[in-house]
Amino acid sequence: MDPAVPSAITSLGGGHGLYQTLLAARMCRPEKISAVVTVADDGGSSGRIRRELGIIPPGDLRMALAALSNETTQGVTWAKTLQHRFGGTGALAGHAVGNLLIAGLTEVLGSEQQALDAVAQLTDSCGRVLPVCNEPLEIEADVSGLDDDPRVMLQVRGQVAVATTPGSVRRVRLIPHDPMPSPEAIQAILSADLLTLGPGSWFSSVIPHLLIPAVVQAIKESEAQRVVVLNLSSDNGETNGFNLERHIHMLSQHAPGLRLDRILVDDAHTQKSSERRYLDRAAETLGARVVYHDLREVDAEGRLTERHDPAKLATALMHNFRER
Amino acid sequence: MDPAVPSAITSLGGGHGLYQTLLAARMCRPEKISAVVTVADDGGSSGRIRRELGIIPPGDLRMALAALSNETTQGVTWAKTLQHRFGGTGALAGHAVGNLLIAGLTEVLGSEQQALDAVAQLTDSCGRVLPVCNEPLEIEADVSGLDDDPRVMLQVRGQVAVATTPGSVRRVRLIPHDPMPSPEAIQAILSADLLTLGPGSWFSSVIPHLLIPAVVQAIKESEAQRVVVLNLSSDNGETNGFNLERHIHMLSQHAPGLRLDRILVDDAHTQKSSERRYLDRAAETLGARVVYHDLREVDAEGRLTERHDPAKLATALMHNFRER
Repeated sequence: MDPAVPSAITSLGGGHGLYQTLLAARMCRPEKISAVVTVADDGGSSGRIRRELGIIPPGDLRMALAALSNETTQGVTWAKTLQHRFGGTGALAGHAVGNLLIAGLTEVLGSEQQALDAVAQLTDSCGRVLPVCNEPLEIEADVSGLDDDPRVMLQVRGQVAVATTPGSVRRVRLIPHDPMPSPEAIQAILSADLLTLGPGSWFSSVIPHLLIPAVVQAIKESEAQRVVVLNLSSDNGETNGFNLERHIHMLSQHAPGLRLDRILVDDAHTQKSSERRYLDRAAETLGARVVYHDLREVDAEGRLTERHDPAKLATALMHNFRER
Repeated sequence: MDPAVPSAITSLGGGHGLYQTLLAARMCRPEKISAVVTVADDGGSSGRIRRELGIIPPGDLRMALAALSNETTQGVTWAKTLQHRFGGTGALAGHAVGNLLIAGLTEVLGSEQQALDAVAQLTDSCGRVLPVCNEPLEIEADVSGLDDDPRVMLQVRGQVAVATTPGSVRRVRLIPHDPMPSPEAIQAILSADLLTLGPGSWFSSVIPHLLIPAVVQAIKESEAQRVVVLNLSSDNGETNGFNLERHIHMLSQHAPGLRLDRILVDDAHTQKSSERRYLDRAAETLGARVVYHDLREVDAEGRLTERHDPAKLATALMHNFRER
């Protein structure tokens, strides 16, 4: 085992951010990849399935499985099928086939984890996908700026509602408050030598992981290098107008005692040395160092996108891992 | 190759009748099993998918795949998953997971046959499932007894409408009238050494096959032993009150020139020798011989069911095959 390359990468997150991170993790060629996935989504196909069948929302799990699918003919076909959405205007419109398949397997096997492992066999998966916990979670936020009186804080409940609020999110909570984490997810955090958190919707994909005390405890206890990947831009909605410093503060505010090692920032993002000093100071409160790398994906026409480039992110992760 | 046992069985039909026949075909241990499946269903989960997505109704195909699924752990799990129906009262209620999976794979692969072959890999299938044609079909029936004037014939369209009509079905047609059969289905008929047709809903699962001229031609040309398995009882609805003789007449009426070899009848069904003589005469018009066997399934409490017993049906098929 080469100590200069990670052998077990565990990535925490959800949605498109986790998808890009998992592509990057694959490029690091570790022996083992685990995705620990948020289960607080209540929108779209996932939300409909969650409400209708009472299971954890499958969408973020499905996307992680697609990201980890092998490049064999079988893996490619099944990844395409998982991600395929029914069209039209009927009752099935918008449902991803993979969401329905995960839901069906969950009901048959009586276990979401077994269902995900069965789908992983289809995609000849390069890693394992683990829901952070085995019950559906809800997020609830204290939001200011919704009332005429700016001092009034209102509660907004549900991932979609929080993600699209025109107000300013101050704090989020989970319902239930102290959910039982998945033992497999905790084990994947403890046994990793590289842990990543983010990028992604800060309040609905990233911070929810840190609201489960056992997850924060496992991150603390893990001997892995702990890396937060900051977003390239502020989401419309939930973190609209938040600067990077505030993103970091949100982590320590929601997970007191959290310890991190690196915070990865796109180097085109923050040019001013004064801003960088503020970032450094925020990171220090978590025991982490801010590092700047070229991370942004460039599209076929040479334009910068709003996504992390998996190859660039992999290079940055490997560079920092060697520096441990 | 033992000439006393069939090496390639091709079973035509649909629904529960085909399911039981395929279980029987497996017990004959041929080298190859093909199911040629009706695509005229418009009810339930199948009908909803057909209308919403414009693809051939997947339900009968799914059941055939389940009947042919292997007894390995993987085969059993996937067969259960294919057959599992979502519960509740929402938009997914009543949908079989396998129907949704076949629909999704069909859209992704652009071919129903490729979709079915992909599902067959999951179930480690003991045979191949072939839709009789690759476009959805509709059945339309001339029905008497719906008007005050008994001479008036009304047209009833759609499988559910025909299957549940309180009138008396006189004749059925396909829409479109002369659909292009699946080349794989025709090949499976031509290359079989044992062909079975039925049991099943006569007008919606059995006769539709005989309304495709190329299918009747292939049955004629095939060197297989051609066996019709008659129903144990008259369905409520479409063949309510039809005696067995009329079932046989319906075949020759709808498929002029059809040639058959055996017509399998449950021996508890028709005791009177006069009835048996009528049956013999009807069978002769098709070139077939009526044979009587104990075919009925007995349940755990020793009561006769309305289903064919796969082991009894297999024994009867093998017996007749040896007699060729």
